[in-house]
Amino acid sequence: MAVIKAEVRSGAYYDSIVLMQLQRALAEQPGVEDAGVVMGTHANKEVLAQSSLLVAEAEAAGNDDLIIVVRGTDETSAQAALAKVNELVAARRGRAGDQEYHPRSLETAAKMLPEAQWVLVSVPGRYAAGVSRQALRLNKHVFLYSDNVSLEDEVALKQEAAQKGLLVMGPDCGTAIVNGIGLGFANKVRKGPIGLVAASGTGLQQVTVRIHQMGGGITHALGTGGRDLSEAVNAVTARQGLDLMARDPDTKVIVLVSKPPSSKIADTLIQAARSVGKPVVVNFIGYASASRRVDNVFFATTFDETAELAIRLIDSPEDFAAQPDLSRFAPGQRYLRGLFSGGTLQCEALLILQNYVPVVYSNAPLDKKNKLEDSLVSKGHTVIDLGEDEFTVGRLHPMMDNDLRIRRLEKEASDSEVAVILLDVVLGFGAHDDPASELAPAIAAAIRSAKEAGRRLEVVAIVSGTDGDPQGIEVQIQRLRDAGAKTEISNDAGARYVGRLLKAIERASQPGTGPTIKPVDLQALKNPLAGINVGLESFAESLKDQGAQAVHVDWKPVAGSSERLVSILERMRQAQ
Amino acid sequence: MAVIKAEVRSGAYYDSIVLMQLQRALAEQPGVEDAGVVMGTHANKEVLAQSSLLVAEAEAAGNDDLIIVVRGTDETSAQAALAKVNELVAARRGRAGDQEYHPRSLETAAKMLPEAQWVLVSVPGRYAAGVSRQALRLNKHVFLYSDNVSLEDEVALKQEAAQKGLLVMGPDCGTAIVNGIGLGFANKVRKGPIGLVAASGTGLQQVTVRIHQMGGGITHALGTGGRDLSEAVNAVTARQGLDLMARDPDTKVIVLVSKPPSSKIADTLIQAARSVGKPVVVNFIGYASASRRVDNVFFATTFDETAELAIRLIDSPEDFAAQPDLSRFAPGQRYLRGLFSGGTLQCEALLILQNYVPVVYSNAPLDKKNKLEDSLVSKGHTVIDLGEDEFTVGRLHPMMDNDLRIRRLEKEASDSEVAVILLDVVLGFGAHDDPASELAPAIAAAIRSAKEAGRRLEVVAIVSGTDGDPQGIEVQIQRLRDAGAKTEISNDAGARYVGRLLKAIERASQPGTGPTIKPVDLQALKNPLAGINVGLESFAESLKDQGAQAVHVDWKPVAGSSERLVSILERMRQAQ
Repeated sequence: MAVIKAEVRSGAYYDSIVLMQLQRALAEQPGVEDAGVVMGTHANKEVLAQSSLLVAEAEAAGNDDLIIVVRGTDETSAQAALAKVNELVAARRGRAGDQEYHPRSLETAAKMLPEAQWVLVSVPGRYAAGVSRQALRLNKHVFLYSDNVSLEDEVALKQEAAQKGLLVMGPDCGTAIVNGIGLGFANKVRKGPIGLVAASGTGLQQVTVRIHQMGGGITHALGTGGRDLSEAVNAVTARQGLDLMARDPDTKVIVLVSKPPSSKIADTLIQAARSVGKPVVVNFIGYASASRRVDNVFFATTFDETAELAIRLIDSPEDFAAQPDLSRFAPGQRYLRGLFSGGTLQCEALLILQNYVPVVYSNAPLDKKNKLEDSLVSKGHTVIDLGEDEFTVGRLHPMMDNDLRIRRLEKEASDSEVAVILLDVVLGFGAHDDPASELAPAIAAAIRSAKEAGRRLEVVAIVSGTDGDPQGIEVQIQRLRDAGAKTEISNDAGARYVGRLLKAIERASQPGTGPTIKPVDLQALKNPLAGINVGLESFAESLKDQGAQAVHVDWKPVAGSSERLVSILERMRQAQ
Repeated sequence: MAVIKAEVRSGAYYDSIVLMQLQRALAEQPGVEDAGVVMGTHANKEVLAQSSLLVAEAEAAGNDDLIIVVRGTDETSAQAALAKVNELVAARRGRAGDQEYHPRSLETAAKMLPEAQWVLVSVPGRYAAGVSRQALRLNKHVFLYSDNVSLEDEVALKQEAAQKGLLVMGPDCGTAIVNGIGLGFANKVRKGPIGLVAASGTGLQQVTVRIHQMGGGITHALGTGGRDLSEAVNAVTARQGLDLMARDPDTKVIVLVSKPPSSKIADTLIQAARSVGKPVVVNFIGYASASRRVDNVFFATTFDETAELAIRLIDSPEDFAAQPDLSRFAPGQRYLRGLFSGGTLQCEALLILQNYVPVVYSNAPLDKKNKLEDSLVSKGHTVIDLGEDEFTVGRLHPMMDNDLRIRRLEKEASDSEVAVILLDVVLGFGAHDDPASELAPAIAAAIRSAKEAGRRLEVVAIVSGTDGDPQGIEVQIQRLRDAGAKTEISNDAGARYVGRLLKAIERASQPGTGPTIKPVDLQALKNPLAGINVGLESFAESLKDQGAQAVHVDWKPVAGSSERLVSILERMRQAQ
């Protein structure tokens, strides 16, 4: 009959590779059916219980105690296996094979490898903040793989780092690729023009992998740790990363990935992304965006789509850094008046415009609270659907009869606060047989009288029709242009143009004083990567495998495993 | 000094073209500055007021009264213009030029053009339901352009039509293209494999126009009227249209467009769209979808994107009609157990799976209410993130150490309700140097023991890595396949495959008895279009311009303009 024997060691520190290897070695001992070597946390005890290994001694162990448990075919085998624990651990240490000298402290490592820009930290969570703080003190960027780090520590570390122009990627940051070298878990990905910032480990890996598989490549992929986009952390690292990618001349397309962020932080980051002058693909997993595109920001919902979009945007002919022309607007000119004949075109325009201006009033608004009290009287930004039932009792549809629209156009154009008029001109069978013949003179007159009053009136006409339509689309467009209107054949493009213009006008009148962050030196990404590794030795080996310089620190917690003492020592050191 | 003169005519009926032309003719009279000819609604009176034409007589007019108002340079001119009203109306009637015989009733028109499948109705709203009812009685499909039709009438008309296998497109349906012929407002659009259904007039026009401009073409474009996707109307016409497009062999890609629908109706339509076996592009304006794709349904947010997606999907190599293989599952097998090492991969999988199954439990769920009480004990569909902090205290990450995952795999596989196991295998630097060497034997053993118990265990492994990764991705994949796993290199594709499988299993166990609709005969769309037109004569002319047969009915309201009397006559007729 099987016999279970357990041993609990208090205050012992072994790194998790040692524990895994010890467990495996025990399981291979003669007469041993199963073995468990785990720290005495609640979750770990449950795992033991599921394997029927949780005996009373193990159950009594605390979070910081090491449980070693063995199930043997008989008492002797179980006892014999347990008795070999020290020997097996020592053997593992001997087998490590690596005869290199390992410094015992970060300070020594930094002297050995002064060009190191990075410190990789993968010690157990309770020690990780302390090690990271030492790294910042040495002016190193930190790749903080460890999890189980407190939120308070994360906030403190990131704020300290940001003040020094340093990055703290993490805690719980699984992956990064800097200048072709992977930190932590990372794939071998082609170099190319896509730069990534992600509060997500395997998400970032999957996107970089898919980019590679689809033939694309990356500049850098920066992790931020999964909590970076929480309100408490305030996306410090993500904003630093975005700023780096914006400044990096090799990065043509930026990708932002995160597990579902706080919606406040998501908005902040999207606003930041809109001002980088490069296309940005955003995948905030599960973030439902009513628009798939806002300016230079494109929303994706899966990693595949993120990779596809990023690759497609590399060769986009659009100039994402272009700024709208604001010349000749008079002070006070700022409002849009949209006069639509097409209800759904109006609806799409409203939807797009809400990405640019806070409120657009309408007789048919997206949100009832923005309904005009009087459809005939505009206020602020207003976009009217003149095809609504209220306007068509005993009256032809505005696609057939331009009278009402022209009267309204004259009225709006005379308003000194109006900067832009947006119209749709719908061609096709059934519609007016020559709308430009009536609209163009009215537009020309409106622009002329605004000009006489010292204002610039921007008129944008969306012409919806095909080359087969009876009105002759080319002639209609030419006539509207001759009258001074800007024309678009896409409602989407027309509304976005107007949105950007309105936003630029608004921004020009209220110069922003948003929070700025201290820029991180781009050279941190550009110089050949060199890293100091504290924790999982395999991460140092991995750096070397990739041709990067690395020094591994033979780290042990100070004063045994007592993190309280560590913290006291830490504070004493800080006080010096 | 300008003088305003007004006249109010009670109970007079003129169609809206006559009113527009009268207004223009009056404005052109000598000494006339402005003129207004409108029905006496509140909105129309406000329009008059804005042009300073609303004098006391006009203000006193009722909804059904015709207001004629003229502003002249002097009393004589104004009076003279008003005195010419009857003459101007008569002149317009004479000028109509069209010497053709026009029947006075729908019945006569139907005898003249028996092949007519369609009746186009554009009479004033209060008469439109009655005319439409007559059309249905004659077994004609109805294109109902008129607006200001009550919701009750719409519901009644559509239900009557659906029972007869007829379509009522509208009310307030601006556009349709049937077999190349535009009804109402429609553009000249190339023929091609895209079929459209839209609760949106200019939206449908814009999408068809953009498809044409991008080089694509359409089979048919069916309007439904803007209220069709309300809960009251229950998308009767949209569902008929979708069903028609699904059955039409020439339609390869379906497009569904609507102004913001009720979310309940949106869900119903999306469910219907998922079973058509063809790609469907959905643009419910302002509908924020957390996934951009669900099965064969693709969500677009602008008309441009809708057109682009539809064109791109024409040549998709995917078989959208393919059904998952359900063979060899034992009764009762139905659940998914997902065992992820990558937290964000798990998160994306949850997001995708929610489109297929109602609840997926997890230790890291999208919605807290689906959190497992015990992370070690699965229930129903469960997807676990084994890289969560709770599992990594003193333990290597599951990307490095497969032990915990293999133990869990064994346990899940032995559950007789489990049908599918989903795993990620993340390759790259830092990860286990040969995960398949440990996972493949465990997978093979799990599949084998399920088989011995008379079950089929589907194991899906998502392998995330590049051809440059140290593990050798090809070898890893081959090993997992040899063990019996299905492999995917995209998390998105893997999760969607699993979702479709789970949904098919669920559907097989609960054969659906959803509401069915009487199919509309496809020939309605296929035969050369012939139409009877009641209302705006230009719509009949437009049909003829496009080479379709059309008869225009010289319609006048029965018994003057009293709709109460019309309604009584109507009921008497129905009672016969």
